[in-house]
Amino acid sequence: MMGYMSITRAGCAALDAADPISDFRDEFVLPDGVVYLLGNSLGALPRRTAAKVAHAVTAEWGQDLGASWNTAGWWNLPETTGDRIAPLIGAGPGEVLAADCTSMMIFKAVSAALALRPGRNVIVSDSENFPTDQYVVQGVAQAFGREIREIGPQAPLEDALGPGVAAVVLSHVDYRTGAVRDMAEVTRRVHESGALMIWDLCHSTGAVLVDITGADFAVGCTYKYLNGGPGAPAYIYVAPRHQEAARNVISGWHGHANPFEFEPGYRPAPGVRRFATGTPPVLAYAALNASLEIWEKVDMRAVRAKSVALTELFIELTDHLGLELASPRHAGERGSQVSFRHPEGYPIMRALIDMGVHGDFRAPDLIRFGFAPLYLRYVDVYDAANTLAEVLSKELWREDRYQKRLTVT
Amino acid sequence: MMGYMSITRAGCAALDAADPISDFRDEFVLPDGVVYLLGNSLGALPRRTAAKVAHAVTAEWGQDLGASWNTAGWWNLPETTGDRIAPLIGAGPGEVLAADCTSMMIFKAVSAALALRPGRNVIVSDSENFPTDQYVVQGVAQAFGREIREIGPQAPLEDALGPGVAAVVLSHVDYRTGAVRDMAEVTRRVHESGALMIWDLCHSTGAVLVDITGADFAVGCTYKYLNGGPGAPAYIYVAPRHQEAARNVISGWHGHANPFEFEPGYRPAPGVRRFATGTPPVLAYAALNASLEIWEKVDMRAVRAKSVALTELFIELTDHLGLELASPRHAGERGSQVSFRHPEGYPIMRALIDMGVHGDFRAPDLIRFGFAPLYLRYVDVYDAANTLAEVLSKELWREDRYQKRLTVT
Repeated sequence: MMGYMSITRAGCAALDAADPISDFRDEFVLPDGVVYLLGNSLGALPRRTAAKVAHAVTAEWGQDLGASWNTAGWWNLPETTGDRIAPLIGAGPGEVLAADCTSMMIFKAVSAALALRPGRNVIVSDSENFPTDQYVVQGVAQAFGREIREIGPQAPLEDALGPGVAAVVLSHVDYRTGAVRDMAEVTRRVHESGALMIWDLCHSTGAVLVDITGADFAVGCTYKYLNGGPGAPAYIYVAPRHQEAARNVISGWHGHANPFEFEPGYRPAPGVRRFATGTPPVLAYAALNASLEIWEKVDMRAVRAKSVALTELFIELTDHLGLELASPRHAGERGSQVSFRHPEGYPIMRALIDMGVHGDFRAPDLIRFGFAPLYLRYVDVYDAANTLAEVLSKELWREDRYQKRLTVT
Repeated sequence: MMGYMSITRAGCAALDAADPISDFRDEFVLPDGVVYLLGNSLGALPRRTAAKVAHAVTAEWGQDLGASWNTAGWWNLPETTGDRIAPLIGAGPGEVLAADCTSMMIFKAVSAALALRPGRNVIVSDSENFPTDQYVVQGVAQAFGREIREIGPQAPLEDALGPGVAAVVLSHVDYRTGAVRDMAEVTRRVHESGALMIWDLCHSTGAVLVDITGADFAVGCTYKYLNGGPGAPAYIYVAPRHQEAARNVISGWHGHANPFEFEPGYRPAPGVRRFATGTPPVLAYAALNASLEIWEKVDMRAVRAKSVALTELFIELTDHLGLELASPRHAGERGSQVSFRHPEGYPIMRALIDMGVHGDFRAPDLIRFGFAPLYLRYVDVYDAANTLAEVLSKELWREDRYQKRLTVT
């Protein structure tokens, strides 16, 4: 703890010069004059993506047409893409399938888990979890006549567990505060109670170290830290021990054991492939795979180390501003984001964005800053903190134009 | 009926010269030396698509990043894209949502229909329907404890209908034979029995005239005749009278009434939007919307007239070859494809493809030729028929290299 007064921009530039993963910044397109602290929402565009997508459009689709299901590997994209995501969550080949969107995958994972725990009637969910997790669990519970037991972020998990619980659905990293759960310990306690553990890794993968070993299912998106593009395919992890028994309730032909024999009856494909449903959006996979080429060269320990250093620096530089830190102060309990609570959070964020610092606002009072270690520099953190200080000290957020709510933020 | 001997290539060229929609061919990229008769499987690439997708990648994503959820209309893509599809199926604004894949949409439509007909336990399905329709219905039936009653293509629908039937799922155009069902009449009879009618329009939209008025739900894909690209978003039609009561069982945040308030409880959005689930694959929508720009300029009656003329010509030119016509001989009962049965169908199709005529094979013995009226010429039909005649008369399909099965065709 040096105190913010002793941290200089030159000092931050020196940290960048010594950063072992600083070269990855050159892999990304970043708009001029912007400090992009929204990689936790929509990751930046990799430079190589445009050419990869163009190739999929003009060569694979335009010239080779349907032959590309074989020759360009379109048919196997869910598995081949999943296998490239697997190392980022501590999974092995054949354990991850990339497809659909996260909400769909939550639906599939929870439905499958319920079927694996017949006679148990309760799904445990986090009342502070990202809303779609809650909404989908509510839909599953209503459709299949199950009960939901919600826990708060502070409540002991044990209060919710018991012999009636079939499955527990939690986020590894909280989307609002960035608080990290102890994955191994939670999984252990859930298993002790006889339930299955489903992790949502949306705010973890590519940001913190993930070791999914031991869990039953996991889901996640690829458009945040993984930079797969807006609405890029999600993924599901299915533990090998469940793959033979787990059933995909949305049993479409892409999950069939022998899809081109056009049999009248559904027979699930072996392994994780059974969690595929319909025709994959090939262009979206092309963008995602461009980004995954970069991730294959990344040492996740170096990413995590830089993530910690960036968020520590930002907290250090902003600690004197009188904001309420909503994120855990201890780096080991924090993902790659820093959030503050402020009753004027909305106009503060609007003013910041106007000045080139892109974070976001989450109702009712949270401002969030995400730190994507592959393309953010220490000087960016320094500049962002300075701009935030200016917005607050000059009360720039009081301007009328920042008060009006936009439709979507 | 002129008889094939009197039809010349010059005569076909004259038909092309007089074709009122011949200019649309210039909108498409078609590989050199190929007669592409697979528009019923994967539509050809529109010329304008590459630039539209590149814009979505480099400008919307790369430069504007998350702001594009507002500024580029990403958030509303499911509705805006659906509204552009609607006229092609006789639907109005706010009745169609573009999202997910067809199999997902079948799952959503069947689940919603069951909930709208409580106490009725049976789903009627076509044993000859495209397999994913059957597989998904089987999954729904198993998940919700319902019964499936299958009808064959020739069996009278009345035998299957009755007071226990909640919903009927049928394809408008049969994927194998191209046989067209009388949509209005079938819907009428299904309604008389008190059940809901769900149409699969995958092989209809953009190929035959569709008037969905009166039906309850419909689903379809956009990568066949609509040329939206491999794995382009599917769509669902929900009749206005059901929109308030119908429930999306996969209740994700994109179908929420107020998604950015991050409420703990799911509340469905008004209208068809509630059938959205998760984050839409933006790049896939960019490709689809490029193609839909073309469709906005198309007169579907002209498309259907040319479709009939093309398939009639192909049947006429191939009638003497001794193939068993699997498609209806009467044009009014036929979609935009011609299928034949032949025990050596697989090597015949392999040989044809080798000679530049691209159709496909469907087990056990079907060879299919699709005729996309926007980019196919009468001379293409002539050349394809001549090549087929050569493959058969010279028995080119007997070559060893055509006998070996590829993984995916």
